Amino acid sequence: MIGSHLARRTDGRLADGRDIYFYDRPERPPRVISDPRDLDPPAIASDMRYDRLLDEWVAVAALRQHRTHRPTTDDCPLCPSRDGQWTEIPEPDYDVVVLANRFPSLVPAASSTPVDLSPRPDEDGAAPLVRPNVGRCEVVSFSSQHGIAFHELSPSQARLVVDVWADRTAELATWPNVEQVFCFENRGDEIGATIRHPHGQIYAYPYVTPRTRQMLRAAQVHRERHGGNLFADLLAAEQRDGRRIVRRGACWTAFVPVAARWPVEVHLMPERQAASIDELTDDERDDFVAVYLDVLARLDRLYDGPLPYIAAWHQAPVRDGRDLAYTHLQLFSMQRSANRWKYLAGSESGMGAFVNDVRPEDLAERLRELA
Amino acid sequence: MIGSHLARRTDGRLADGRDIYFYDRPERPPRVISDPRDLDPPAIASDMRYDRLLDEWVAVAALRQHRTHRPTTDDCPLCPSRDGQWTEIPEPDYDVVVLANRFPSLVPAASSTPVDLSPRPDEDGAAPLVRPNVGRCEVVSFSSQHGIAFHELSPSQARLVVDVWADRTAELATWPNVEQVFCFENRGDEIGATIRHPHGQIYAYPYVTPRTRQMLRAAQVHRERHGGNLFADLLAAEQRDGRRIVRRGACWTAFVPVAARWPVEVHLMPERQAASIDELTDDERDDFVAVYLDVLARLDRLYDGPLPYIAAWHQAPVRDGRDLAYTHLQLFSMQRSANRWKYLAGSESGMGAFVNDVRPEDLAERLRELA
Repeated sequence: MIGSHLARRTDGRLADGRDIYFYDRPERPPRVISDPRDLDPPAIASDMRYDRLLDEWVAVAALRQHRTHRPTTDDCPLCPSRDGQWTEIPEPDYDVVVLANRFPSLVPAASSTPVDLSPRPDEDGAAPLVRPNVGRCEVVSFSSQHGIAFHELSPSQARLVVDVWADRTAELATWPNVEQVFCFENRGDEIGATIRHPHGQIYAYPYVTPRTRQMLRAAQVHRERHGGNLFADLLAAEQRDGRRIVRRGACWTAFVPVAARWPVEVHLMPERQAASIDELTDDERDDFVAVYLDVLARLDRLYDGPLPYIAAWHQAPVRDGRDLAYTHLQLFSMQRSANRWKYLAGSESGMGAFVNDVRPEDLAERLRELA
Repeated sequence: MIGSHLARRTDGRLADGRDIYFYDRPERPPRVISDPRDLDPPAIASDMRYDRLLDEWVAVAALRQHRTHRPTTDDCPLCPSRDGQWTEIPEPDYDVVVLANRFPSLVPAASSTPVDLSPRPDEDGAAPLVRPNVGRCEVVSFSSQHGIAFHELSPSQARLVVDVWADRTAELATWPNVEQVFCFENRGDEIGATIRHPHGQIYAYPYVTPRTRQMLRAAQVHRERHGGNLFADLLAAEQRDGRRIVRRGACWTAFVPVAARWPVEVHLMPERQAASIDELTDDERDDFVAVYLDVLARLDRLYDGPLPYIAAWHQAPVRDGRDLAYTHLQLFSMQRSANRWKYLAGSESGMGAFVNDVRPEDLAERLRELA
């Protein structure tokens, strides 16, 4: 079931019926999962709305106002359950755990009949287009240790997380209604993370996301015009140029993109094209861990403290454009100095027109120096 | 020069050479503008970078770290100059003033030769594509009164602001390198506004912005498929449906879009297609003011206090798609309850995939009740 020789997966269910998956190192004894809590499934009024002005879907998931908001360490939902205190993880210890989000933005379909999002020819071209909300939101706890940051994970623990991303990506791709799998981490209160325990999330969307559609369109035009793969050609150009390289590994290169939108932005790209994380080899996963842990540690040295960031895994859609796509990690932060923040105001949020007040070459130079 | 019978424009220059335009009611005496301050032009390292992954331009404007940051009332740069204290506006009183931004994201070209942003056929398809930063950023002071909000302006003062937007739009459209004019207001510290004096901004971009390109693409497809204008057809559909209407005037309708991305989002659309603000008639401008002041006042009642918001005027590009475009105002806020904020985290910032946890119909109903 899991595409790794490093872990064994045990599936269970939480008290309200949600899935939970334990990814354990082989030396752990087998588990029998049982959640004794008394939990009602949360009521969420959700659907999908088609935005005709932008040709994009928007998910609506209302009544999520009661979700967990910055719990104290004592009642962290992602710590193991110990001393009679039950958390979301009903076991006394674990390596990596994935569970279905209790307050999901995307909810699995009630019926097994796939939902067709595409506008039907008989539908009015301007009337509201509303469909059932379908998809999946999962939470990935990176470690049982509450106070640890991703870059403080041991390489073998970080490698286990990569294998978990790969396993979830491969499995969710087989679900009906799933068109794209997105693994990400929001780190820091300032970015809206509501839980401080080191964790990430996985969204399985019922559509190809806007940014991915845009990248695939650019990659298609590039192929027609120049013959090559856009991502591979960009990576080679950055390596030739050199000014924006932060760190090179055997299989991965970390660089600040020439048109970075954010005051801190680093892309990690592999030498070899892989459409999604599950297509990465053992060597590529290990080298990713080496480069990523190093880059993350540098980021925390930028302003001498934990940098709020978003780490976003770009993966190919499940069906379309897998030959054009090229899995890579986009790491970015809105923090533009020790006490300043980049706000997405009128130009960015209204027009989609970004202004960056940090020169990409200057950021790359600083990050290289922070070894 | 100005497309309004309500105001007279007087042009001047600030101490560092920047333009300033006074828009005065006819009863004010003529002005002779003179700025006695000793100002160095700020040094800004700026250029435009082409993002090949997304087929979009990004402006880089570095060394803007010293810009004015939340000055106290005493040294507000947009208050009139009085009692020997010189501000950015070297006159003792004014109605509406526009001035070139001292810390611009987009800077006027040094040479009068237009800059060609389009990739040339001989340029490598993956090498960094960097062009001079060109364009224009202006600040619009809505009133000489420091403590007033837009919705507290008198209708005749608000109407003067509309005329100023129209005049700037028409004039900037004639500049070399300007492809689109964007008038907007960022209100509130939480949205990144650095000055509390009631003011807006105008960006004149050297390219058609991403959101506008996307809307024009959707409008083109809609016309080919259904024959009509997408915006007009959407407005008519909202009016027929009725559930998301906030307020209807004689010429303008305010409604929550069916696929709203933000917890608070209201669009104001006119009945008649106009490509840009300067094409609006006197009646349309007056009715806009009536509807807009009413909607803004409702927004401040949502959570019983000044709502941080972005007001974004969507206008046609200067050259392309003027028959497809349809000027309208998009008003939105990230505030989702009295003490909660909508963060653009992984899904929105990484993938462009929005999740809204307020149902548009619920928001419209609340706003209707807050009369």
